[in-house]
Amino acid sequence: MAESQGNRIIVVGGVAGGASAAARARRCDEHAEIILFEKDEYVSFANCGLPYFIGEEITERSKLLVATPELFRNRFNIDVRTRHLVQSVNVENKTVSVLNRESGEVSEEPWDRLILSTGAAPITPPLPGIESENVFTLRNLNDADAIKAFIAEHGCQKAVVVGAGFIGLEMVEQLHHLKLETDLVELQPQVLPPLDPEMARLVQNELIDHDIKVHLGTAVVTIQTENNTATGVELGNGTQIAADLVILGIGVSPAIELAQAAGIEIGARGGIAVNDFMQTSHPDVYAVGDAVEYQHGVLGTPQRIPLAGPANRAGRIAGQHAASTSADPMIAPMGTAIVRVFGITAALTGLSKKFAELTQRKNRSIIVVGKHHAGYFPGAQQLFLKLTYDPESERILGAQSVGREGVDKRIDVIATAMKFKGTVRDLAGVDLCYAPPFGSAKDPVHIAAFVACNDLDELTRIIEVDADLSAYQILDVRSQQEVDTFRFPEITHIPVDELRGRLGELDASRPIITVCHSGMRAYIAARILQQSGFEDVHNLTGGMLMQRFARPELFE
Amino acid sequence: MAESQGNRIIVVGGVAGGASAAARARRCDEHAEIILFEKDEYVSFANCGLPYFIGEEITERSKLLVATPELFRNRFNIDVRTRHLVQSVNVENKTVSVLNRESGEVSEEPWDRLILSTGAAPITPPLPGIESENVFTLRNLNDADAIKAFIAEHGCQKAVVVGAGFIGLEMVEQLHHLKLETDLVELQPQVLPPLDPEMARLVQNELIDHDIKVHLGTAVVTIQTENNTATGVELGNGTQIAADLVILGIGVSPAIELAQAAGIEIGARGGIAVNDFMQTSHPDVYAVGDAVEYQHGVLGTPQRIPLAGPANRAGRIAGQHAASTSADPMIAPMGTAIVRVFGITAALTGLSKKFAELTQRKNRSIIVVGKHHAGYFPGAQQLFLKLTYDPESERILGAQSVGREGVDKRIDVIATAMKFKGTVRDLAGVDLCYAPPFGSAKDPVHIAAFVACNDLDELTRIIEVDADLSAYQILDVRSQQEVDTFRFPEITHIPVDELRGRLGELDASRPIITVCHSGMRAYIAARILQQSGFEDVHNLTGGMLMQRFARPELFE
Repeated sequence: MAESQGNRIIVVGGVAGGASAAARARRCDEHAEIILFEKDEYVSFANCGLPYFIGEEITERSKLLVATPELFRNRFNIDVRTRHLVQSVNVENKTVSVLNRESGEVSEEPWDRLILSTGAAPITPPLPGIESENVFTLRNLNDADAIKAFIAEHGCQKAVVVGAGFIGLEMVEQLHHLKLETDLVELQPQVLPPLDPEMARLVQNELIDHDIKVHLGTAVVTIQTENNTATGVELGNGTQIAADLVILGIGVSPAIELAQAAGIEIGARGGIAVNDFMQTSHPDVYAVGDAVEYQHGVLGTPQRIPLAGPANRAGRIAGQHAASTSADPMIAPMGTAIVRVFGITAALTGLSKKFAELTQRKNRSIIVVGKHHAGYFPGAQQLFLKLTYDPESERILGAQSVGREGVDKRIDVIATAMKFKGTVRDLAGVDLCYAPPFGSAKDPVHIAAFVACNDLDELTRIIEVDADLSAYQILDVRSQQEVDTFRFPEITHIPVDELRGRLGELDASRPIITVCHSGMRAYIAARILQQSGFEDVHNLTGGMLMQRFARPELFE
Repeated sequence: MAESQGNRIIVVGGVAGGASAAARARRCDEHAEIILFEKDEYVSFANCGLPYFIGEEITERSKLLVATPELFRNRFNIDVRTRHLVQSVNVENKTVSVLNRESGEVSEEPWDRLILSTGAAPITPPLPGIESENVFTLRNLNDADAIKAFIAEHGCQKAVVVGAGFIGLEMVEQLHHLKLETDLVELQPQVLPPLDPEMARLVQNELIDHDIKVHLGTAVVTIQTENNTATGVELGNGTQIAADLVILGIGVSPAIELAQAAGIEIGARGGIAVNDFMQTSHPDVYAVGDAVEYQHGVLGTPQRIPLAGPANRAGRIAGQHAASTSADPMIAPMGTAIVRVFGITAALTGLSKKFAELTQRKNRSIIVVGKHHAGYFPGAQQLFLKLTYDPESERILGAQSVGREGVDKRIDVIATAMKFKGTVRDLAGVDLCYAPPFGSAKDPVHIAAFVACNDLDELTRIIEVDADLSAYQILDVRSQQEVDTFRFPEITHIPVDELRGRLGELDASRPIITVCHSGMRAYIAARILQQSGFEDVHNLTGGMLMQRFARPELFE
């Protein structure tokens, strides 16, 4: 590896991407001069831990300070200057203009290589009342301190969280942990908009089970105030909610102002455009983290992916390349993300069904319901897994999972297969750990792949979870007891074990959908029918179990 | 898919592979005649659950019966004949000779396709006393019933388990659960022989912490008896151990007698030779499960892999191919396996370091010590991860992990990357789930890959965990407090944060090894030295933490 001499590297922003870049640059070039400017007080703090600190699941504030300016100085010989705001970048002279926020002094600092890790800013819509002292966003430790202080000082009892994305849900959980009565407002008609609606419904039910009031498909139109303090919100649907504090978690916009003003290229999605080595349109200026657009591993186009994992990996690459002009290229991220919501976990990677539709990709989706470890072993928990794939290339496009245990593992396995552009057939043969406390000989990942392969091979024709069923005769092959519990209004009921002897009860001229609890018996039934003269037979993926969430209005 | 007519399929053996094959054959061909012969009473029972049933972690025996003969008949129209022993196979006439063990009758049954899932038999060495009523092997439900009954009837207090492989360790744990005082005897100088010794030592310590007496590098030479009842064992090293029962878990040998007598090819490893569709040397005879040799995903040669996962997947392929003459090929397994031993989990995939050496492959190994989720989030548990790779192709050859939480996920992710013949550089960029309760932005999997890449790029030169250190000066860069706790006898001690100012204390003419707690600070120190005129600098992988297990004699 080439190691340059006389390299002056300036890093702007000292959290995930910037801190990773600075440390990696030092390890690659002991002799570079490395200066890190951070506009706030802290560097390398645990951004993702903030909700848990507010909710007192993390009790020691010091634990959030992953690395201090002192450590950067002593261990890495990096000149960390906190409370220093980089105001402008001059790419011709290769300088930055920096405001010392303590002294008010402004200085010009030269660089040979510049790494921008400017992050993103929480979106705050121009609502009446938005400036109230108890309307918060959550981005840094100061925000968390302010929220904690306000709750403690005012003995808050009621909160409204606006936005049911990852941070919104984490805040709802943690406010509940603090025993605040909490309402959640989301503009989309579902919680966790990155998920498909029926998967999100599993999360919504968990919220409702914990007494969270969920308001979907509506927005906050006014924040009601008294003396610059919010007292409640009014929603577009007319609902009034009293509140002692309001948390906004409706997304972030990339902090591109510095780059833009310097003439650095901004991508179509509004983030800084970078190549695989995190170089911007100016080869000596790098950018990483929430401010950039990454090549998306499935879409193959630049996308904003404001997540900690890619930021950290990109920082490492930028730091190495800035220090030594070579590095392994960034491996395209796929938006793999996860959230714990009370007792359940929701995770996804790649494209949801609805996003595949939105981007006009050919796609098919199947859903399986499995156990996180052997069903006969104590404590087995139900796990929903949805797999979306391209029916032509057979490539996996995405996966979503919701359950109480083992969700992270399944999504990580599928995300790993997707890194290699794996197909559903590849996934059917991955050699996973198995012992009863950890999984099953046929893991839910395998079962999902098997079902997808059966669909591709037309061994069974999958009907997707939200398909219009009105043209079909529905053959329910569950037991009488199961059918009595809940069922579609109009069904033909023949338990699977009796089907071979009762084929005459079906109308062979009409298309048939087979249904059971989760899909396995319906598949067996569909195979029997397909080989017994019934030509138009389909199997409803995810079974009645998933229908409860996909079409709740039918069963509530 | 072609669906044959008039196909008579006989399956021999009704557990994992055979049951999967029969059910899949039916789904692929509704009209085939399918007969399943099982020599014992049960089909499709949960083999892997038996230790937990003995130890009463699984309390309901019925839960182990995953599918009954009745279910096979009603749901799959499969003619299941239990207590029927297939005595011989005639490949010319395409018949089997079957003994009805109830009636004593022998019949000839014709087949068009035959699927052998004959399994394996526990190895029982010809020791004096081996035939005693309380010397058990564990293979099927009858064995488990017998062990349970004996313990209950005789109020057993003391057990000896022979063999520290997967089943041996599961039995030790479960006998301890029953409050039996338990000794474990293993011929190899370590527990869990598939692991490298220092990783196995982590498991051994957990056993010792639970008062298991572990006897390594010695074998049982005599089983002492009174009235056909074992009263103890004598080991090769002279140790005498009293025992109320003895469990043998020293491995299995493939049940190939039927195939061999029929002239079907047996492989070099003693298992039935099969192709990727599980066809034997006779194209209408298939074989699956513990009796066969699978193509090994890393070695690329046929190997016996007597595990449930491959058996189930192979059964499915054989069943489909036998029914319809086409199927996706078997994806080569890699021996991915896992075991829970009290509070810890040990898992591996692919080759260990020692197996890579044994098979004369170029290899390098690194060890990282991480946390199973964000270190600042409550409950983070330490996890050891060893990655073995080919330094030329950079391909991952194997991984081993031991820890209290999250071990299965890391090994599954690496096993998935290995399915695609992934390199350590691929692994560095996998896009995994991250939120504080589930992982870290840089997961231990990433860190392991980063370290391996640094090793390949000579950014740091890794010294492996068991290397001879005598020729090196050892630079310990930990804090004074850490050094005082335990250290190598001869070290130069300079804390990493002081190193830049104290380079003069080192002898630049001698090769240096840097060490710290787990390897990170030692890596930073090595980078400083390598770029400051020290030419021969190495970093001890896994740090002092791993040395405690690799060279316990130095620190005990």
